[in-house]
Amino acid sequence: MINLKPISLDQLKITGSFWAERQRIVKEVMLPYQYKVLNDEVPDAEPSHALENFRIAAGLSEGEYYGMVFQDSDVAKWLEAVAYVLAKDRDPELEKIADEVVDLIAAAQQPDGYLDTYFIVAHPDKKWTNLREDHELYCAGHMIEAGVAYYEATGKRKILDVVCKLADHIDSVFGTEPGKKRGYPGHEEIELALVKLYRVTNNEKYLKLAQYFVDERGQQPYYFDIEAEQRGDGKLHYQRWGPTYSQSHLPVREQQTAEGHAVRAMYLFSAMADLAKETGDESLLAACRRLWHNVTRRRMYITGGIGASAWAESFSIDYDLPNSRAYTETCAAIGLVFFAHRMLQLELNAEYADVMERALYNGVISGVSLDGKKFFYTNPLEVWPDAAEHRHDHEHIKTTRQGWFRCACCPPNLARLVASLEKYAISVGDTVIAVHLYMNSEANLQISGQNIQLKQKTNYPWDEHITFTISTDTPVEFALKLRIPGWCNKATLKINGENIDLASITEKGYATIARTWQSGDQVELMLAMPVERIQANPKVRMNAGKVALQRGPLVYCLEEVDNGPCLTDICLPKDATFKTYYDENLLGGVTVIEASARRSDTEWDDILYQPAQDSCRKVTIKAIPYYAWNNRGRGEMLVWIRQC
Amino acid sequence: MINLKPISLDQLKITGSFWAERQRIVKEVMLPYQYKVLNDEVPDAEPSHALENFRIAAGLSEGEYYGMVFQDSDVAKWLEAVAYVLAKDRDPELEKIADEVVDLIAAAQQPDGYLDTYFIVAHPDKKWTNLREDHELYCAGHMIEAGVAYYEATGKRKILDVVCKLADHIDSVFGTEPGKKRGYPGHEEIELALVKLYRVTNNEKYLKLAQYFVDERGQQPYYFDIEAEQRGDGKLHYQRWGPTYSQSHLPVREQQTAEGHAVRAMYLFSAMADLAKETGDESLLAACRRLWHNVTRRRMYITGGIGASAWAESFSIDYDLPNSRAYTETCAAIGLVFFAHRMLQLELNAEYADVMERALYNGVISGVSLDGKKFFYTNPLEVWPDAAEHRHDHEHIKTTRQGWFRCACCPPNLARLVASLEKYAISVGDTVIAVHLYMNSEANLQISGQNIQLKQKTNYPWDEHITFTISTDTPVEFALKLRIPGWCNKATLKINGENIDLASITEKGYATIARTWQSGDQVELMLAMPVERIQANPKVRMNAGKVALQRGPLVYCLEEVDNGPCLTDICLPKDATFKTYYDENLLGGVTVIEASARRSDTEWDDILYQPAQDSCRKVTIKAIPYYAWNNRGRGEMLVWIRQC
Repeated sequence: MINLKPISLDQLKITGSFWAERQRIVKEVMLPYQYKVLNDEVPDAEPSHALENFRIAAGLSEGEYYGMVFQDSDVAKWLEAVAYVLAKDRDPELEKIADEVVDLIAAAQQPDGYLDTYFIVAHPDKKWTNLREDHELYCAGHMIEAGVAYYEATGKRKILDVVCKLADHIDSVFGTEPGKKRGYPGHEEIELALVKLYRVTNNEKYLKLAQYFVDERGQQPYYFDIEAEQRGDGKLHYQRWGPTYSQSHLPVREQQTAEGHAVRAMYLFSAMADLAKETGDESLLAACRRLWHNVTRRRMYITGGIGASAWAESFSIDYDLPNSRAYTETCAAIGLVFFAHRMLQLELNAEYADVMERALYNGVISGVSLDGKKFFYTNPLEVWPDAAEHRHDHEHIKTTRQGWFRCACCPPNLARLVASLEKYAISVGDTVIAVHLYMNSEANLQISGQNIQLKQKTNYPWDEHITFTISTDTPVEFALKLRIPGWCNKATLKINGENIDLASITEKGYATIARTWQSGDQVELMLAMPVERIQANPKVRMNAGKVALQRGPLVYCLEEVDNGPCLTDICLPKDATFKTYYDENLLGGVTVIEASARRSDTEWDDILYQPAQDSCRKVTIKAIPYYAWNNRGRGEMLVWIRQC
Repeated sequence: MINLKPISLDQLKITGSFWAERQRIVKEVMLPYQYKVLNDEVPDAEPSHALENFRIAAGLSEGEYYGMVFQDSDVAKWLEAVAYVLAKDRDPELEKIADEVVDLIAAAQQPDGYLDTYFIVAHPDKKWTNLREDHELYCAGHMIEAGVAYYEATGKRKILDVVCKLADHIDSVFGTEPGKKRGYPGHEEIELALVKLYRVTNNEKYLKLAQYFVDERGQQPYYFDIEAEQRGDGKLHYQRWGPTYSQSHLPVREQQTAEGHAVRAMYLFSAMADLAKETGDESLLAACRRLWHNVTRRRMYITGGIGASAWAESFSIDYDLPNSRAYTETCAAIGLVFFAHRMLQLELNAEYADVMERALYNGVISGVSLDGKKFFYTNPLEVWPDAAEHRHDHEHIKTTRQGWFRCACCPPNLARLVASLEKYAISVGDTVIAVHLYMNSEANLQISGQNIQLKQKTNYPWDEHITFTISTDTPVEFALKLRIPGWCNKATLKINGENIDLASITEKGYATIARTWQSGDQVELMLAMPVERIQANPKVRMNAGKVALQRGPLVYCLEEVDNGPCLTDICLPKDATFKTYYDENLLGGVTVIEASARRSDTEWDDILYQPAQDSCRKVTIKAIPYYAWNNRGRGEMLVWIRQC
């Protein structure tokens, strides 16, 4: 393990281009829009009732609970996202709204620390009786994450005190000590949240509680069976999915493959990585590595989407990655970013950052429209809208993004991730600065007590050049570690204009430039971005004979609006040459790929089958980044293109 | 319309090769096995209880009804199949068993003619209250078909009287007259059965009742809604599928596309064709043609399987024909044979016979193992067993044939079709003999009062030569019409050794040889059977870039046992040459196709995605007839092969 940790949000200022625009949309569109939704002020969206539930729980309003059993978490994730915005820019108006939400949450908390409006309002007698399904610990986890983030952003203790009291209450209920319940959450989340709470409070109780929850999971006899028997209802809804659904089929260190609900798995694995980092537990680290390997080498879409099965929103078997039926929940790709980012703090290996980047630029941000107002819950890689809207086995697929969801986990999850992207970009150690993600930005860091400014000038991911400029009052010795992405086959590096042999200084995907840095030192990194035809492992049966186009970190797709219907009819010659150009007026500005391809040229009339004619005609195809699809109306979309 | 009708079973003797063996298995294996199942004497199979239900209804046994609401139909279809065997060969032992079943059925019938053991035993107060779901008219239909067949085979009136009394009872309950219910069956079947009963009894009441059921379907207000309201339960099980499920969304003459449950649709369309034949109703014939066109040009698999959606066992939209998730129920392919055969008696067009043959040789007989003891309910065109057994969206797919089913419609349906195949082979008119299906056989027919023997010598479908020899006491004038299959691009014809220009005498796929025939006249038909690479219409998105191998009427597939795992990795060059040979020791004797193909040759290790390498290695692939797959254990199977 190495001694690296993420920078704090205020240490990096994203100064333009790709992510600056997305962060602007989070702040100016998504958070105000989501606040309106949480207040049920958006007429066309699914009702939320989430803030009203808190008002009712606090005795400030009358009425009944409405929404999913985990509706509270939408508020918590919104507050967490707001905290990340405030950490960089303390907008007083936004902070005032957030303070009011904090007050409301605090008012809803019960004297003993309990805080879950579903049970406070609807079932006060059923607290902690159905951990398998009822998401109390999940909601508590999100509240803790929000509390930690809001405290870190504003220095205000009120919500931190609320979540400490909540965590203390949970600690009094769960554990191995006599009289405590030996339960653990049906939906993981509190584990990683408790590690965060430990890190901000230094209170080891929270770390131990996190460890308890992780260690207890999957032990025999199954707690979920015990509590079901105590409730007298062994055969409820989720039971049909069995214990793999919540990764409770085996103790975590014995799990060989990523099973069950993909979001849950990611939150668990993230917590396992956190605990390995904090405790040095090698057996947990080994499990993390094994599960990482299984997810990313066998069960991940090229977009970084995970969860190939709508049934139980779960992983399927190795290599089973159907494109049109992919579940690939936005939250699962976000969870993969969480897991990857944590592994990266344990081991500086570009494999983790590659997957993190893959998910971020593709399967995560495909979850939101360019204007920030519409969302995908599932992110398929191939869509034939007529069939998707007709077939029962595609009922989880939406062919256009939606304003909100009854189960609204994804939109605020997206907001909190994008708003905190700075943390994912750079890690620092005592004498190390490791850059994982490239973006036009200014980092203000400290090495050996010296202030160092690391400026990146780039138009990544559209452009392959990144220029770093260092400013420091006095020369300082440290290692600058730059990720050489796995997608890049030709990278070059210059220091102050002088070519450096990259191979000799690159290990596990990071180039190390260890030297005494002077103010004005410049590093030029060039990551060649030709269009690549990517193949999937032949065991991924659905992608046999197909290629996906990738340029830099971006996976591309074909859309009907550019290429006409029946996209599967298009085939791309193996020797295709690609033309790329940046179109600032298209989809908020994207680099477009064009290529000469073929389409069938047979007269079919109304015939269904006939001997192969093999004649075809030339067409020019136009591909756009996958994340930007479905911003020009309903239509077919295709990532994996036939090769000929 | 033309004046053609099928021959009777005793007019054709199948004397060897393909169908003789299958008929032998029906008689010697399937019927005895199924009788044991119906008596619950097969330990490993799903329990049937079907005959016991009759015993209980007849007061001969005590107990409760068990099974599907349509369990009676399994007995009826078995009896019908037995009748077809007896029509050709009055095996006294088999007839004795059948007579006992007839006695049992007669004993179960109620004095008013009512006959449905589910209602007699379990719900005597609920007769005719839920036509939408309860299959009473469906069971009656199968009983009538059995009664007609058994009477025709044996001349014994007992079961014919039973079914006439049953039909009379139904006629007293349903119709447009005051006091009658204006209902129609949720599952069509009685309509075509009543036409058969009319044909054997000449009682027009039965024809009119059939016509009433067909005409009433889909009229507003919906009868199924009316009866649901009368029951006070509008929202039961099947309701979710809506009226298209049972083709009752529109009056039949207004239906433009084949919708809903595929078996139901086929039985309805067959009855419509029967009525068009009997009444000359042009509007019904037009509807039949339109629906035929939609099914066979837009919604049919290359195997003749239909019903692309497991949801409601139904048709999907045009061109949506997924291979691994195909429902393609065996009964639906059988139903398509029924429909095709009826259209063929209306219009001598090889298009009907082509589809009939396609279904028979592929999607129908794939439903039974070569030994006659195991059955497929669904017949997918691509199977990856690991995924099919894991994925919820494949839960309708079995990766090996089963001994029996809880819903056991398919096995006896197969038996009755194969046992009566003679009817489908040849039709006769006043001075016409039309041969639709080729098989080694002797037909004994009458034309203008003259006995004519038409002998076919062939090893069809393995061999492309068919030699007809005519025997007749005195020369007789008639037109011999021989089908030139749509799959055949090169046919030749000789009469008594002299070449005939086929094109000039062929219309709508039938070559007409009109002459005065002498005893000893010989016709040699050669239907060239090269291996064809067949493509699907590009709108069938899942088959883009793929070909299916077909030889003669047989669609071929690859199996893992011959070609190793990961069949999708195989690609077949466009210029592939094929080697074929008959292997008498393989799968009961089949012609095998071999070809040189390619497989990927990239080192993948444990990588999921990488830039395209495009290198491949040569392999020899071996294809077997689709119908014979899964007779050598569980494994992958693939019909549509990638082309390269």
